[in-house]
Amino acid sequence: MLFGKGYTLQKLKDLKQTGEYACQETVTLITERQGKTYKIDNVRILGPERDQTQVEISATDARQLKLNPPVRNSGNLERSEPITLQGPHGSVTIENGCIIATRHLHLSTEDAKHMNIKSGDEVSVLLGDEKSGRMDHVSCKVHENYVLELHIDTDDGNAFRVQSGDLATVLLP
Amino acid sequence: MLFGKGYTLQKLKDLKQTGEYACQETVTLITERQGKTYKIDNVRILGPERDQTQVEISATDARQLKLNPPVRNSGNLERSEPITLQGPHGSVTIENGCIIATRHLHLSTEDAKHMNIKSGDEVSVLLGDEKSGRMDHVSCKVHENYVLELHIDTDDGNAFRVQSGDLATVLLP
Repeated sequence: MLFGKGYTLQKLKDLKQTGEYACQETVTLITERQGKTYKIDNVRILGPERDQTQVEISATDARQLKLNPPVRNSGNLERSEPITLQGPHGSVTIENGCIIATRHLHLSTEDAKHMNIKSGDEVSVLLGDEKSGRMDHVSCKVHENYVLELHIDTDDGNAFRVQSGDLATVLLP
Repeated sequence: MLFGKGYTLQKLKDLKQTGEYACQETVTLITERQGKTYKIDNVRILGPERDQTQVEISATDARQLKLNPPVRNSGNLERSEPITLQGPHGSVTIENGCIIATRHLHLSTEDAKHMNIKSGDEVSVLLGDEKSGRMDHVSCKVHENYVLELHIDTDDGNAFRVQSGDLATVLLP
């Protein structure tokens, strides 16, 4: 419905996590409040496709869209925020699907064993320089295909003034 | 130049720090990069007036304006970013003046004595709930007129998911 009947998403580039990729396609996120429309353009689609459409935004985005999404692990969409996605061929409104993603750490089975971490454990992480600090409630996700990588949102990145590729220190449980 | 010759800024409301106030007037922040113009509208002016104009933005704002301002204490503007302010009667470009404000803690002389903190000391602060953590390099500002209050920017507020009025825990040095 967003890109036309039978359309297949096109890969733009692989992400660091095996099998995950950014798509060439983007959508516009839309909300309506009291007759006014709020939008964020050029929101990248990530593949592969899931059973359920999920929109991960930052608290800054949420403010712009007048939403108040819960902080959730990916896939945990019950009672999350409704949102409309608009593509070049139409739009879709999902009743549940918009969340602020919980900060999380991807680990391979081997890395997890080495660090004595199980999937679902929470760790704290030190990061940053002139705006350094510690992030708590970082959820661990362990899978044989995963590559050691910390996933935080743009608010976290901006608040701690870190960029993709910077180092972080995991405090072991 | 921004509001017309001889214009006096009008108080909107007092801030918590004695003598400081938000003005009714706002400006538009403007930058130009490679022939393109970037803007942020409705930026509130804070009084009282200082000797030197200072623009405090978040890293998210900086990204929108294509700026890379340093993280600095208020008033420390050397080699900070140039920026243009536009008002209803004209615009002013300042060569130095745009910073990301260092996270800071205002303390009365009495509170500071009680906590064994001196002006210029750095402390760490715990805050937040589901996105909790610790902020380091929080600069202490002590003055008899100050009221105990933590000043962080919107990126920090969004990253830690805290709001004005929430409690924070200062880790004493």
